[in-house]
Amino acid sequence: MDAFFDLPLRPSMVAVAGRSAEATAQAAEKLGWAGAETDWKRLLDRDDVQIVDICTPGDSHAEIAVAALAAGKHVICEKPLANTVAEAEAMAAAAKEAAARGVRSMVAFNYRRVPAIALARRFVEEGMLGQIRHVRAQYLQDWIVDPEFPLVWRLQKDKAGSGALGDIGAHIIDTAEFITGERLTGVTALTETFVKERPLAASSAGLSAGGGTGRGAVTVDDAALFIGRLSGGGLASFEATRFATGRKNALRIEINGALGSLAFDFESMNDLWFHDHTIDSAEHGFRRVLVTEPDHPYAGAWWPPGHGLGYEHTFVHEMKDFLEAIAAGTDPAPSFEDGLRVQRVLAAVEQSAAEDSRFITVEGS
Amino acid sequence: MDAFFDLPLRPSMVAVAGRSAEATAQAAEKLGWAGAETDWKRLLDRDDVQIVDICTPGDSHAEIAVAALAAGKHVICEKPLANTVAEAEAMAAAAKEAAARGVRSMVAFNYRRVPAIALARRFVEEGMLGQIRHVRAQYLQDWIVDPEFPLVWRLQKDKAGSGALGDIGAHIIDTAEFITGERLTGVTALTETFVKERPLAASSAGLSAGGGTGRGAVTVDDAALFIGRLSGGGLASFEATRFATGRKNALRIEINGALGSLAFDFESMNDLWFHDHTIDSAEHGFRRVLVTEPDHPYAGAWWPPGHGLGYEHTFVHEMKDFLEAIAAGTDPAPSFEDGLRVQRVLAAVEQSAAEDSRFITVEGS
Amino acid sequence: MDAFFDLPLRPSMVAVAGRSAEATAQAAEKLGWAGAETDWKRLLDRDDVQIVDICTPGDSHAEIAVAALAAGKHVICEKPLANTVAEAEAMAAAAKEAAARGVRSMVAFNYRRVPAIALARRFVEEGMLGQIRHVRAQYLQDWIVDPEFPLVWRLQKDKAGSGALGDIGAHIIDTAEFITGERLTGVTALTETFVKERPLAASSAGLSAGGGTGRGAVTVDDAALFIGRLSGGGLASFEATRFATGRKNALRIEINGALGSLAFDFESMNDLWFHDHTIDSAEHGFRRVLVTEPDHPYAGAWWPPGHGLGYEHTFVHEMKDFLEAIAAGTDPAPSFEDGLRVQRVLAAVEQSAAEDSRFITVEGS
Amino acid sequence: MDAFFDLPLRPSMVAVAGRSAEATAQAAEKLGWAGAETDWKRLLDRDDVQIVDICTPGDSHAEIAVAALAAGKHVICEKPLANTVAEAEAMAAAAKEAAARGVRSMVAFNYRRVPAIALARRFVEEGMLGQIRHVRAQYLQDWIVDPEFPLVWRLQKDKAGSGALGDIGAHIIDTAEFITGERLTGVTALTETFVKERPLAASSAGLSAGGGTGRGAVTVDDAALFIGRLSGGGLASFEATRFATGRKNALRIEINGALGSLAFDFESMNDLWFHDHTIDSAEHGFRRVLVTEPDHPYAGAWWPPGHGLGYEHTFVHEMKDFLEAIAAGTDPAPSFEDGLRVQRVLAAVEQSAAEDSRFITVEGS
Repeated sequence: MDAFFDLPLRPSMVAVAGRSAEATAQAAEKLGWAGAETDWKRLLDRDDVQIVDICTPGDSHAEIAVAALAAGKHVICEKPLANTVAEAEAMAAAAKEAAARGVRSMVAFNYRRVPAIALARRFVEEGMLGQIRHVRAQYLQDWIVDPEFPLVWRLQKDKAGSGALGDIGAHIIDTAEFITGERLTGVTALTETFVKERPLAASSAGLSAGGGTGRGAVTVDDAALFIGRLSGGGLASFEATRFATGRKNALRIEINGALGSLAFDFESMNDLWFHDHTIDSAEHGFRRVLVTEPDHPYAGAWWPPGHGLGYEHTFVHEMKDFLEAIAAGTDPAPSFEDGLRVQRVLAAVEQSAAEDSRFITVEGS
Repeated sequence: MDAFFDLPLRPSMVAVAGRSAEATAQAAEKLGWAGAETDWKRLLDRDDVQIVDICTPGDSHAEIAVAALAAGKHVICEKPLANTVAEAEAMAAAAKEAAARGVRSMVAFNYRRVPAIALARRFVEEGMLGQIRHVRAQYLQDWIVDPEFPLVWRLQKDKAGSGALGDIGAHIIDTAEFITGERLTGVTALTETFVKERPLAASSAGLSAGGGTGRGAVTVDDAALFIGRLSGGGLASFEATRFATGRKNALRIEINGALGSLAFDFESMNDLWFHDHTIDSAEHGFRRVLVTEPDHPYAGAWWPPGHGLGYEHTFVHEMKDFLEAIAAGTDPAPSFEDGLRVQRVLAAVEQSAAEDSRFITVEGS
Repeated sequence: MDAFFDLPLRPSMVAVAGRSAEATAQAAEKLGWAGAETDWKRLLDRDDVQIVDICTPGDSHAEIAVAALAAGKHVICEKPLANTVAEAEAMAAAAKEAAARGVRSMVAFNYRRVPAIALARRFVEEGMLGQIRHVRAQYLQDWIVDPEFPLVWRLQKDKAGSGALGDIGAHIIDTAEFITGERLTGVTALTETFVKERPLAASSAGLSAGGGTGRGAVTVDDAALFIGRLSGGGLASFEATRFATGRKNALRIEINGALGSLAFDFESMNDLWFHDHTIDSAEHGFRRVLVTEPDHPYAGAWWPPGHGLGYEHTFVHEMKDFLEAIAAGTDPAPSFEDGLRVQRVLAAVEQSAAEDSRFITVEGS
Repeated sequence: MDAFFDLPLRPSMVAVAGRSAEATAQAAEKLGWAGAETDWKRLLDRDDVQIVDICTPGDSHAEIAVAALAAGKHVICEKPLANTVAEAEAMAAAAKEAAARGVRSMVAFNYRRVPAIALARRFVEEGMLGQIRHVRAQYLQDWIVDPEFPLVWRLQKDKAGSGALGDIGAHIIDTAEFITGERLTGVTALTETFVKERPLAASSAGLSAGGGTGRGAVTVDDAALFIGRLSGGGLASFEATRFATGRKNALRIEINGALGSLAFDFESMNDLWFHDHTIDSAEHGFRRVLVTEPDHPYAGAWWPPGHGLGYEHTFVHEMKDFLEAIAAGTDPAPSFEDGLRVQRVLAAVEQSAAEDSRFITVEGS
C-alpha cells in the first residue's frame, strides 16, 4: 500500500482474534499478524491496537463494534452492518457518539473502491447522466447451485441474518445509492429458497450447523428480487442470487439518465461502459472506458494505463481511505449510518416478501 | 422468401387497406401491393384474399380479427393481441371456432423467429438447462427520452392500450414463456410515466392526438418493471422501458438453469450465449454461438456461416411458418390463446401496479 | 428494395444464364427470373437486358465483361475482378472505353455497402482519425479446416486464380483502401497450403475437379499473410485464411490514427467501434456505435434504431448505388480500375511469397 | 505472497541499488527495502543477498547478470534479456555454467504467469487445439502517439536496444512460443519510426537523453510488424506498436488449431476465449473462460471464482515459481536460453527489416 500511495499513517498488523487458539495462531503466522488472541475483547484492552476490523458473521457485529467504539478504537465493520435494523441502529448511534470523541467508523462496502465504480460516481456527480430514470442492478453468483453443497454458516439465518439478500444484495443496494447519490424509498419483493435442505457440513471453526451427518434446513433466501423507487423519481430493479449458473461474481449495474448511461460488471472490473447521449447520434454508443488512466480514481496510483487491478485492490483502497480519514480527523464513508440505511432497505425487502409483495416504504427515507 | 425456403404456398400481395385513399394508394405502389382499399371490410368480401394481416393499433384488433375469421380468412395479428383481456378472450374464442373450420390464426410475436431465440428454445427443450431458476428479461429502448418528442398514438391509452408494457413488455413475456416452456403465474409490478405531458403531434393519418399545437397528457406508462414466479418454481424479472438512454432495441433475456444458462440481446441478434455447467469447470464459460450454422433454426436456409441475418428476416420466418401451417392444416404458433395469456399477464401487471404492487396471480395460470 | 429506397430506376429480373438447361431453369423458377439462357452470350443479344451481373468463377470474368460492355450493357462483376493482372487491365480498359459511351461498370466489393464500413469511411473522410498509422485487417474463415472437405472449384488455381488470397484477401485489401482513402504501396508476404490434397468432389455444375473418386492436389493457397506500407506513411497487416477454426466470416479491420481509431468485425456487422482520442482521457475508450441510426449510411432507410441489418442488405445497397449511378449518368464505385488495383496488390503478394518474401512495390502505386 | 501460497522459502527485501544515493534511499523507504546501495556491485559482496533482480535498461543486463551469477547469486533478469545476441549468448552461457553449481536464473517474461496464458499453455499441451495453423499476436500501446512526448531512454537505441520491438515485441514472441510449445523458425519484417524527433526530456536519474531543451532523434522503432513460420508448420503474425491509439496495453494473441482456438487480450486479463471445434456445431462458439476457478493455474490460490486478478499478481506468481525452483534445486523457466532464443528472433526481425524484408531464418531454429 505504501509503495503506491503516500499514506499519512502506516498501519501495523498487531493482532488477529479467533476462537481457536491453534487456528488463530496459524492464521497469524500465515497472514503476517504479530500477535493472536482467542477473545476479541482482549484486543480492546491493548494500547497498541487503535483500529479494529470486524470480519465475523453478522450476528456478532453489533456487540463487537459498540464495545470497540466505546473503547476508543476506530472500527471498520464488514457488511451488512448487522443482522437486524435494531442492531444497526445501535451501531449507528454508537458511531455517532464515538465520532464526537474523534473515533472513526466505516462499513466495508469495498465495491465503492473499485475504480470503475468510483468513476461512475464521479460522472454522476458531474452531471453527465442528467436525471436518473433507471437503475438495474444484479449480483449474480452460482456457488450453491449444486444441491449437495453443504449447509455452511452463510445459509443459516441465526448466523447470517439473510442469504443472498444480505450478503450480496446489500452490496448492490449500497452501490446503487452510492453512484446515484439517491435513496431507495420503497420496494416490492420476492424471495425464494430453491434448495430447502442441504447436507450438514463438518464443523469448521464452529461456523457450520452441527458436526454430524444428515441434512439440515436452509433458513435463508437463495435469491431475492426487488423493484423500487428512487428519491429522484426513477425506478430501480435488483436481483441477488447464488443460482445464476455460470455467473461467478457478476455484480452488475446499469444506470440510465436523461443525458447518458453507465454500465458495469465486476467480472470485468476494470471497465466502465459509458454512453454520452449529448453528442451527435451518428457517433454515439456505449464506450468501454478502461479505468486505468492516471486521472481515474485510485487507478492512477498504480501502473501505466491498461494494466488492470484485481479484487484485492478494493481493500487496499478502502484502508487507504480509512487511514486518511483518521489522520485528517474526518468521518470516512460509508458510515455506519449508511450501513443502517442499507439495513432498512433489506428489512423492507423482507417485509414485502413476507406480506404478499406489497410495496413497503423504506424507513427514514 | 421463395429463394431460400421451399414453400408449399406462394403468397400474392393482393391488397392493402387504409383509411386515406391517397396514402393507401401510395403505400400500395411503394410496397408492391396489387390493390388498395379504404375500408378493411372490403378485404373480407374479396375471394382473392385468403389471408389478412392486422397491423393496426390495438384498439381495432378484435373487431377486424373476429370479422376476418368469421369470413373464413386466415388471420395473422400484430401484438399485443388486444387492448383488453375481454377483447383477447373474444379473439381466442373466435380463433378456436375458426380452427374447427380449418381457418388459421397466429399472433405476430416475431421475435420467436429470431434464429437465436428459436435455438434457445431448442436447447431448453433438449434439457440442456435443467430446472430453470431464473429469467431476467428486459426490453430497453430510448426513443422518447427527449421530453419534446411528440404525443404519438403509442403514447395514448385509448389507441395503444398501454405504453412500454404492451408494446415491448408483451414481447419479453412471450419470449420468456416461449423459451422456457413455462407460465408466468403471478407478478408484482411498478409502472411510471416520467414525462407527463408532451407536444401534440401534427396529425399523421389520424394516429396522433389532435392536430393542433400545445401539449397533451401522456396516458400510458413510459416504463414497467415487474417480477414474478414461473410455473416451474423459478423467479423472473421483467423491465420494459423507452427511457434506457443508449439502448436502441435491446430485447435481452438471460435464463439460468441448474445445468446451464443462456443469454441473448437483440442488439446482437445473431448471437446466443450459452453456458454449459456440466463440463469441466476449468473449461466452462459463456460461449458465443453465432447462430448462422446449417443446423440452426431458420439460419441454415440462408447464407454460409458467419453471414448474419437482420430484423427483416424474423418476418420472413414468421410468414414461412404461417404458410406452412396453412398448407399442412395445422394450427400455427403462437396462437391467439397464447396472445390471450400474454394479455392476462399484462392485465395482472397493471392491476398490481394499481394496487400498491401487491402480488397478482395471473388468471388461468 | 423499392420499399425502402426511392429508386430512379426499377430493375426487372429478365433472365439468368447457366450451362445446364435444367439447373438454370430451376434456378430461374426458384429465384424469380423471368427467363433462362444456357449461353451467356445470348444475354448480350437481348434488347430487354440492360445490366449484366457476372457471378461466375474468376477465369471467365474478363471475357464476359469485355463482351458485355462492348454490347452496351452495364456490368457489375464479382470480385476479384479477374484471375490475372493482364485480364484486369483489359477489363479496366474496356470499362474506361465504355464509360465514354455512357456504359457503366462496377466491381462487386459488397462489403463497402455494410453501413458500419461506409460509416468508417465517413469518419476518416471527416478527419476524425487524423494521420493513419496502422491498419490491421483479417478475413478469417474455417470452412476447409477438415482435410476431408472436397476439392471444390475454389481450391483450384485454374478456376479461382488463387485461394484465400483472391477470394477473401481481395475484400480486406479493398476495404482497407476504401476506408483509409490510401493505397497499399508495397508488400512482403507468406502463403501456405496446409492441406495439399483433398478428395475429389462429385461434379456439381462442372465446378469441381473431376467427377470420380480419389484425391487431387489443392493448387491454391489456404492462407496468405502480408504486411505492407500505405501511401500515407502507415503500416498495414493482412491475413486471409480458411483455417481459423471457429471464425466463420470474420472480416475484421482495425485502424489507428493520430486522433482516433476504428474497429470492425463482420461477425457483428452492425457495430462500428470508435475511439476518439481528442476527448478527456478520463472518458475515452472504444465505443460501440450501433450503425442503425437515421443519419447512418444506408441504415436510415430501413428500420428504427437497434434493428440490425443482415448480409443480404449489402447487395441491396450495392444495387441501389449502381442503379442510381446509371440513372445519374455517373461512374459508380468501386470501378474496374479499383478492381485492377486490388489485382495488382494480389499479384505483388504472390510475387513476394514466391521470391523469399522480399518487399514488392505494387505496380502503379 | 505468503498469505496465498505455501512457499518453501520466505524472501527478505535486503537492499535496492541505484546510482543516486538520495533517490535510492527514498525508493528503499517507500518500497520497503531494508537497505540501499549506490553501486550494484556492492550487492554481490553481501552474504545476506542470495537473489539479484535486474531491472535496469537492457544495456547493463549482461554485465550485471554475468557478475551476479559468478558471485553465486540467483538471478532474475528483466526482458528482453539483452540488447544484442552476443550479450544474450554470454548470459546464457553464464547461466548454464552457474546452473551446474546450483545457481538459478530466469528471464522475467512475466506474462507467462497470467493465469489465462498459463491455462492457454495447458490447453495446448493437453492437445485441445490439435495441430496449430495460425498464431496472430499483437502488443498494442499508445503512450507515444503525441509527438510532443519526450525522448525518454526507451526511445534511444544505446539504452534500450530497440523500441516497440524489444520492449513489447519480445513479450509476444515469448508468449507465442510458450503457449504453442513451438519455435518461430523465420520471419519477414517491416519496422517504422513515425516520429523521427522528439523533445529532449529533463534528465531523470540519467535515463533521458541530455538534460536541456531542444529536440533529439528517436533512434528506435515505433512499430514493428513481422510474419513468420512456426516449427510445426503454421503461420504467425506479430505486431508491436506504441501508436495504436486507444489500445493501452493490449497484448493480444489468437491461436487457431485443427481442433480448436484460443484468444486472449491483456486488457481483459482474467478472460481466456476458447473454441472447441470437436463438439456439435450447433453448440460451438468462442466461450469466455473466466480464469478464476480453483482448478486454474495460480488463480485457485487467491479468491473465490469471479474475483479477478491484476497486473501485480503476474509478478507474485513469477517470484513464487522462482523461489520454488530455487528450493527444489531445479531450473526455472523461462531460462536465459529461452531469453536468448527471443533475442535471436528480434535480431532476425531487425535484419529482415534492414534487408528489404527478405525472409530471415532464425539462428539455431
